[in-house]
Amino acid sequence: MELCEILKRVDHTLLVPTAVWEDIRKICDEGIFYHTASVCIPPSFVRQAAAYTAGSVPICTVIGFPNGYMTTAAKCFEAQQAVADGAAEIDMVVNLGWVRAGMYDAVLAEINQVKASCDGRLLKVIIETCLLTEAEKIRMCDVVSDSDADFIKTSTGFSTGGATREDIILMKAHMAPGKGIKAAGGVSGPEAAAELIRLGADRIGTSRVIAALVQKQKEGTAYETISNTAY
Amino acid sequence: MELCEILKRVDHTLLVPTAVWEDIRKICDEGIFYHTASVCIPPSFVRQAAAYTAGSVPICTVIGFPNGYMTTAAKCFEAQQAVADGAAEIDMVVNLGWVRAGMYDAVLAEINQVKASCDGRLLKVIIETCLLTEAEKIRMCDVVSDSDADFIKTSTGFSTGGATREDIILMKAHMAPGKGIKAAGGVSGPEAAAELIRLGADRIGTSRVIAALVQKQKEGTAYETISNTAY
Repeated sequence: MELCEILKRVDHTLLVPTAVWEDIRKICDEGIFYHTASVCIPPSFVRQAAAYTAGSVPICTVIGFPNGYMTTAAKCFEAQQAVADGAAEIDMVVNLGWVRAGMYDAVLAEINQVKASCDGRLLKVIIETCLLTEAEKIRMCDVVSDSDADFIKTSTGFSTGGATREDIILMKAHMAPGKGIKAAGGVSGPEAAAELIRLGADRIGTSRVIAALVQKQKEGTAYETISNTAY
Repeated sequence: MELCEILKRVDHTLLVPTAVWEDIRKICDEGIFYHTASVCIPPSFVRQAAAYTAGSVPICTVIGFPNGYMTTAAKCFEAQQAVADGAAEIDMVVNLGWVRAGMYDAVLAEINQVKASCDGRLLKVIIETCLLTEAEKIRMCDVVSDSDADFIKTSTGFSTGGATREDIILMKAHMAPGKGIKAAGGVSGPEAAAELIRLGADRIGTSRVIAALVQKQKEGTAYETISNTAY
């Protein structure tokens, strides 16, 4: 797989609680330089990042993140504000207690209310696979398939595990056509990203793909050479 | 220290993302039975818990939790909704990126805006000590002392560390009189809670104090005997 095929699917991500604007600006610069699908950053930086990037790279942010147990109204408010601040993509976390309790109608209704608050922007739905049983994962594929959301997403990166090959295989088997699949959490670099894309992932949430490329550039490997490397 | 001296300072806490109503109800029942200061639960359960407990135990919830990087407007919205849903106490997380960047005026302004959204309810300010330097912790003691908030709180329980003896000693030395100190995260049981109270903590956020008592009761030790145990 050519590097550009990976990069155009990467949500270049920085969601650590202690990130400062200089860190976020670097993520934006890299996202623009490497033509990633988006940069994924905390809500409180969206307005500044949108002004800084001025449309050069889509801004993605997170809501109800990472625990998912905020109220639906709070998630909708967060989504509306993210859109007003300039976000083009919104990654929400479902209410995992509702999933565990089998309250799938409530989960679906919440997703649709958040989507309605996104004013047409892309909505990805994080189901936090590491906390779910196989049956719950499949059921959540059905729920997100039936919803107005655009993507299902494996993980927040803040729980006990990230995206696995098995998760992506399961999602590819159970998601409706037309819905995207995002693998996130623990993706170790370009090789892992390429493998997850081969298995069906349409997006990869990670900072490590770009970090690997930046490292190679520091080592003197030209971008042209890197971009021709098969992964 | 007598057990009742510990219990009246405990925020009996369950904030795992997968908690279901039965788990929350158990926390409420235990908080009522053991006369804890409050029960601390996720926002999406506040309304149901407030109806269930009907004033028998104060409901505490968390906002901007646990990463702190939501927008100020989102935190204020969450606080308003928590109050409307029946919360008596609100634990907020500060914007840790702003702390790291030295934007203490912005941190202070946000705390005061959230407090204004609390309609007189108690506000505790989580500074996530494990992510701060000694100088940042002291500076945050000054900020919270100068703010309209009621308490400073060590930790979310979702980062790299919880409350330490050193944190409480530092807070006791630097917080203004009249402001409370809450130790949370990793408090292992009644003995640890007693020690943190002796050092200056006014509140303890934990589920393990009650878990230890429930365990003793299961083992046949009467509550009267437990309550006379010196910690």
